[in-house]
Amino acid sequence: MSNSTYDISPRTKMVRGHKRASYDRATVHRIIDEAIICHVGTVLDGRPVMIPTAHWRAGEQFYIHGATKNRVLAAIADGAEACICITHLDGLVMARSAFHHSANYRSVVMYGKGRVLNDPALKMEQSALFIEKLAKGRWDQIRQPNIQELKATLFLEFDMAEVSAKIRSGDPVDDEEDYALPVWAGVLPCRTVWDDPVDDRRLDRSLLPHATLA
Amino acid sequence: MSNSTYDISPRTKMVRGHKRASYDRATVHRIIDEAIICHVGTVLDGRPVMIPTAHWRAGEQFYIHGATKNRVLAAIADGAEACICITHLDGLVMARSAFHHSANYRSVVMYGKGRVLNDPALKMEQSALFIEKLAKGRWDQIRQPNIQELKATLFLEFDMAEVSAKIRSGDPVDDEEDYALPVWAGVLPCRTVWDDPVDDRRLDRSLLPHATLA
Repeated sequence: MSNSTYDISPRTKMVRGHKRASYDRATVHRIIDEAIICHVGTVLDGRPVMIPTAHWRAGEQFYIHGATKNRVLAAIADGAEACICITHLDGLVMARSAFHHSANYRSVVMYGKGRVLNDPALKMEQSALFIEKLAKGRWDQIRQPNIQELKATLFLEFDMAEVSAKIRSGDPVDDEEDYALPVWAGVLPCRTVWDDPVDDRRLDRSLLPHATLA
Repeated sequence: MSNSTYDISPRTKMVRGHKRASYDRATVHRIIDEAIICHVGTVLDGRPVMIPTAHWRAGEQFYIHGATKNRVLAAIADGAEACICITHLDGLVMARSAFHHSANYRSVVMYGKGRVLNDPALKMEQSALFIEKLAKGRWDQIRQPNIQELKATLFLEFDMAEVSAKIRSGDPVDDEEDYALPVWAGVLPCRTVWDDPVDDRRLDRSLLPHATLA
């Protein structure tokens, strides 16, 4: 890659909050990779539609997949442009005035048209990347997709070109005179935690190889 | 309210996964109220755009707010229809086949046009509802918005009419023959946790009333 930042387009140029903007590829990649779920929007019959769906990334390509019958995915497959957003909420920013309340967050917005993957070998390769994102080493343990399953799944590939990140972190920023107010101010931090795996009720542990218990 | 469920529209009718669909108002309300952040999409110059933003609810009205200059909010204020989505990821569903991997989640999708609140008294009332959602009792402690701040903030109100929820929970559902495979299957549960409040570095604790430390 010759350039460590994304080009700024009219749509990714921040009108407001430009101090929070980032076009740094590594920053964008981290925000994307840390998330399981993105929101994908498009225009269908002139109206906005949106779904939450899982995603993954390989270099400067971004992937989503789903049932071929899904209306949003099918519209993008038919050539409709997509807007994709990924958001991590990191905390609530509790200021001394209502107006300066805010959130700490990291988000990415991306625009682009999707390419349908038709080659079963490419679909298989992307299935593997997705499963490996969820749990490293799992692809070789599970039953891999058969040809009917690949046929029933629509894979969409996006070139990451029109992309930007927006990040807010740290303390509230109050009007100077408000710092004298007798009210607590600071950040209420939040994060996603993963709890212990829960066995499928139909899991038969006697079937499992010794060292691969989750 | 005469009806405990939302009417099904052509757009909220589930094409796929209809067993996961819910139109129950109480279910939809819970999913909305538990979330801080929603994703709001609309169509601008024929193309999809989207932002993450905070939201709140009062009865069957749904609210977002932001800077008057925000492109997405301004488009909706100008009459563009919105699609709003709220998603809680509850876990990864690890099946025995790649194809049946899934997610446990609760999501709401809503369609509608937004109404701009112009009356400063209404804007003040909604500011209070938003701050009270973030932290009960806080509205009376902070500096409330002045007239310039209210002017700089766009409040959009949506009637919750075209709304649906989608929920998946529980174990993976594998093809019958795959239950004999020697691979772990189950759910990797995740959730959002709130950590201890972090004081603003400029907080002067001597200013605070005795009993209201965060």
